Amino acid sequence: MPGPGQDAHGEEPRFLRACRGLPVDRVPVWFMRQAGRSLPEYRAARGSGSILRAIADPELVAELTMQPVRRYGVDAAILFSDIVVPVAAIGFGVDVVAGRGPVVAEPFRSAADLGRLRPLEPEQDTPAVPQAVRLVVELLRPLGVPLIGFAGAPFTVASYLIEGGPSRTYARTKALMHGDPELWAALTDRLADLAVASLRSQVDAGATAVQLFDSWAGALSPQEYARFALPASTKVLGALAAADVPRIHFGVSTGELLPQMAAAGADVLGVDWRVPLDLARQRAGPGRAVQGNLDPALCLAPWPVVEEAALDVLARGGGTGHVFNLGHGVLPETDPAVLERLVTLVHDTPVGEAGAAGRTPGSVAP
Amino acid sequence: MPGPGQDAHGEEPRFLRACRGLPVDRVPVWFMRQAGRSLPEYRAARGSGSILRAIADPELVAELTMQPVRRYGVDAAILFSDIVVPVAAIGFGVDVVAGRGPVVAEPFRSAADLGRLRPLEPEQDTPAVPQAVRLVVELLRPLGVPLIGFAGAPFTVASYLIEGGPSRTYARTKALMHGDPELWAALTDRLADLAVASLRSQVDAGATAVQLFDSWAGALSPQEYARFALPASTKVLGALAAADVPRIHFGVSTGELLPQMAAAGADVLGVDWRVPLDLARQRAGPGRAVQGNLDPALCLAPWPVVEEAALDVLARGGGTGHVFNLGHGVLPETDPAVLERLVTLVHDTPVGEAGAAGRTPGSVAP
Repeated sequence: MPGPGQDAHGEEPRFLRACRGLPVDRVPVWFMRQAGRSLPEYRAARGSGSILRAIADPELVAELTMQPVRRYGVDAAILFSDIVVPVAAIGFGVDVVAGRGPVVAEPFRSAADLGRLRPLEPEQDTPAVPQAVRLVVELLRPLGVPLIGFAGAPFTVASYLIEGGPSRTYARTKALMHGDPELWAALTDRLADLAVASLRSQVDAGATAVQLFDSWAGALSPQEYARFALPASTKVLGALAAADVPRIHFGVSTGELLPQMAAAGADVLGVDWRVPLDLARQRAGPGRAVQGNLDPALCLAPWPVVEEAALDVLARGGGTGHVFNLGHGVLPETDPAVLERLVTLVHDTPVGEAGAAGRTPGSVAP
Repeated sequence: MPGPGQDAHGEEPRFLRACRGLPVDRVPVWFMRQAGRSLPEYRAARGSGSILRAIADPELVAELTMQPVRRYGVDAAILFSDIVVPVAAIGFGVDVVAGRGPVVAEPFRSAADLGRLRPLEPEQDTPAVPQAVRLVVELLRPLGVPLIGFAGAPFTVASYLIEGGPSRTYARTKALMHGDPELWAALTDRLADLAVASLRSQVDAGATAVQLFDSWAGALSPQEYARFALPASTKVLGALAAADVPRIHFGVSTGELLPQMAAAGADVLGVDWRVPLDLARQRAGPGRAVQGNLDPALCLAPWPVVEEAALDVLARGGGTGHVFNLGHGVLPETDPAVLERLVTLVHDTPVGEAGAAGRTPGSVAP
């Protein structure tokens, strides 16, 4: 009898099969930020300390990573961590402030700051990360549930280093990339190396898929993306090709960037709710799976609304080559019971039978 | 000899001709938020008082509206105002906080709050608005420069009333629209009436074009837009049809919504920098002009970067049926000299000769 994450078609978990475009017994489902503030057991285990300190504790990381797997029965776990962990570990001076996000005391300003970005030695600099991966993989093995490792894409991490924190306009980041393209290339190349080192260490420790978060790439025009984000992200995803694990590539507001994000070397394109999934698949091109894309804000609406929207996502996803997820992270105010019902709904809906056959891609009329 | 905003082809200003898709001697140009904190003369005239108090002073509004016309020689003025002026005027309890935006002390929560949204009587409730329009129109007449009136679209205004201020997720707004669609329809219908009353009074006082700002509609999926934003925006734009002034319809991150925003009754589609303008025109469909779409953050980059990007915008705009603008408002830290050079560049570039003939719409390769 297959474990919760295992596919009735074979030993390989359905999440990994979906990432590879293989037939699945059910559409797999997990949620970005499934571990986190929406869970009471998370708040109990985490307390009020710094998130970076929590991430340095492998047992705690393993517990936080496992919580949503136990509660929801999702088809994949994702390591509890943060995209700034590598830059923080090499001493760039990054903190993560609750309710605000990463904050950098001395932002990246000039070529002199490149010296603050030495290579990452994962086993020395972030020993808790591979330790936690090994712990989690052991806990997941009997369940047949794979672990996703992750890293921040060079553009998104660079935006934090340059802006000093979250931004609405990315004005300083854009001024630097356009004003000093060589420095930008050097910066993002170093950040690519950090991401590769971190992802490789997670895969070596047992993660069987990776997600590259380029959360804020949607702030770029397609021309900017081509010149300033694509090269370093291609380097990261290319370096993982030999590891033979599915590579998920995700960002928000990236509707116009999907062809390029696919070309960067993604096996799976993560899509937010702005682009209907059938249209996203067209833009991604053949041979790629899609992940998404229920609006996380919808999870605060009454259940019939969530259900209808989730079935629409399943219909547009087409059953094969689709990993069900939200279009961005779980909102902290989400009722875990809604996510629980979502997992049940996705698992109870026969593959390819969510309706809407023959729908025009991207159409909004019923 | 034609005035600065007038078209050599005839009496009608080139901005209005471009909105109607008629041939122009030069592509017209103006900038969203061209009046504002980026101008030293604005900071001098405005002082540090509340923006809503400034908007209640017709002479001050006229001065602030004229400043960018004098400095830049733009082809259109836009009334200095704010999208929350109508709801503030009828006593909903809205303030505009510097650096934060509109803030609502008692947000909209239930049907009882509909009683706080009575109809707007522009001449009584916002007398300074038509007064300022009349003053500005007199000042603009010798220059041959038209005045754009504007209003906030029902979805975007509703989001402020419900969230109580700016939001990243619009979670409360979406919870209300999905959880109580009838209340949402009633709310946005009232906000549509407010927008219509305000726009009509601006047109009656002499504005010869209008822009409906649905700045945050890009947070919606196409399905949500169709059901929850389109009806009220269609009402607003439809009510202005008889006025026979060009109707510009603008939002950010609206790439997937452009066909619907056009169908709502737009003569001109305002587009942010995420969608190449040639692709935006395809999505808008025939018979509509486009406005945009230089990234405002790019104006902080060195001039050769701005110039290259602006020429690309002109090339993709195609010369006819294109109003040059930024893809969103001028950033406060923008050097006015850059905007001045941009106006000169746009006016010095012969129509249809910015290059890139035969480019595939939306392509990013040279």
